[in-house]
Amino acid sequence: MINYPVHIKRPQQPVANEKKSTKVSAADRGMMLEHDLNRSNEWYLQQDRAIIYKKPTPVTIVKVDYPARSAAKITEAYFKVPSTTDYNGIYKGKYIDFEAKECRSRTSFPIKSIHPHQIRHLDDVTRHGAIAFVVVRFVAYDLTYYVTSSVMTDYIHTCGRSSIPYAWFQEHGHRISGTYLCPVDYLKIIDELYFKENK
Amino acid sequence: MINYPVHIKRPQQPVANEKKSTKVSAADRGMMLEHDLNRSNEWYLQQDRAIIYKKPTPVTIVKVDYPARSAAKITEAYFKVPSTTDYNGIYKGKYIDFEAKECRSRTSFPIKSIHPHQIRHLDDVTRHGAIAFVVVRFVAYDLTYYVTSSVMTDYIHTCGRSSIPYAWFQEHGHRISGTYLCPVDYLKIIDELYFKENK
Repeated sequence: MINYPVHIKRPQQPVANEKKSTKVSAADRGMMLEHDLNRSNEWYLQQDRAIIYKKPTPVTIVKVDYPARSAAKITEAYFKVPSTTDYNGIYKGKYIDFEAKECRSRTSFPIKSIHPHQIRHLDDVTRHGAIAFVVVRFVAYDLTYYVTSSVMTDYIHTCGRSSIPYAWFQEHGHRISGTYLCPVDYLKIIDELYFKENK
Repeated sequence: MINYPVHIKRPQQPVANEKKSTKVSAADRGMMLEHDLNRSNEWYLQQDRAIIYKKPTPVTIVKVDYPARSAAKITEAYFKVPSTTDYNGIYKGKYIDFEAKECRSRTSFPIKSIHPHQIRHLDDVTRHGAIAFVVVRFVAYDLTYYVTSSVMTDYIHTCGRSSIPYAWFQEHGHRISGTYLCPVDYLKIIDELYFKENK
């Protein structure tokens, strides 16, 4: 919001305003990719193609109120650092595991937006035979890339940089297309990479 | 809600008692099985045998406060009905999915303690090739059973009862043993059921 110069006198702010209370909204937090992935996963589920869910946001619940005759209300809880990726499930008998990130920069993806725990987790499940990957959306271009987890974490482990250039994704990633009902059709990429002989 | 006509005079309740505020404690909520499973999964992770995690409790976050200089505090949230089971991951390249329940009764396991969503989910992942099962602990006997998901859901779909007798678990389940570091060693059962030739 712009404070126009005509707006000279600011109202006296009560102390209570120091704590900003906010309704959590998907659009505000730049969670369009999450929304698109949830819709794609619902589509896969309806078509009985794959069973893949987003894990709930991990929170530490400290206090719960039980108001008479209504559902339990959590009144104090904190966000936890996730120890795993956000999405996992099963496709064609294989264990699927991935993390999804939106990127606002036009030039590079900041590595710190993936927690070290999550990188370790991706390496772990890959070693155990999972189909593991990272979905990165460059918001400015509205382009979404599939990157095989090992390709990305190998780069992260060795590059010595704090970000991955956009050109790297163009070279090593796979552009994910979609439809209205399945906006991020990542199974198409998995089919090409892992099940080509079956098609 | 029905207002019975006899219910003329309501007792004066002190205001403070209307909302009961409670610290959430694992022991109070009978979550010893969860605790034991988390320890077993940590053990498997340390040994690099399997990568299996409990999913976070699903909550709908309504309000978040951002007190100055400290972590975001969730001040209003509600428990959601889970659409999947609590645990999943990968073992020997296979997708693992299970639900865990403590049972206080000595005679039978109430079917309603597993949500219909979760039963459907277990059937779904089984059809897609998962190793899916239910872990039931009879607290009174301190005995923990592994039951193959399809065996249990077949019974649930056809029995026409509201509970499963304890004797059924003795017949169709597999007793899970454990050690101090791995209190619920369910991978031992999976090895016997699915990987016997590899041992």
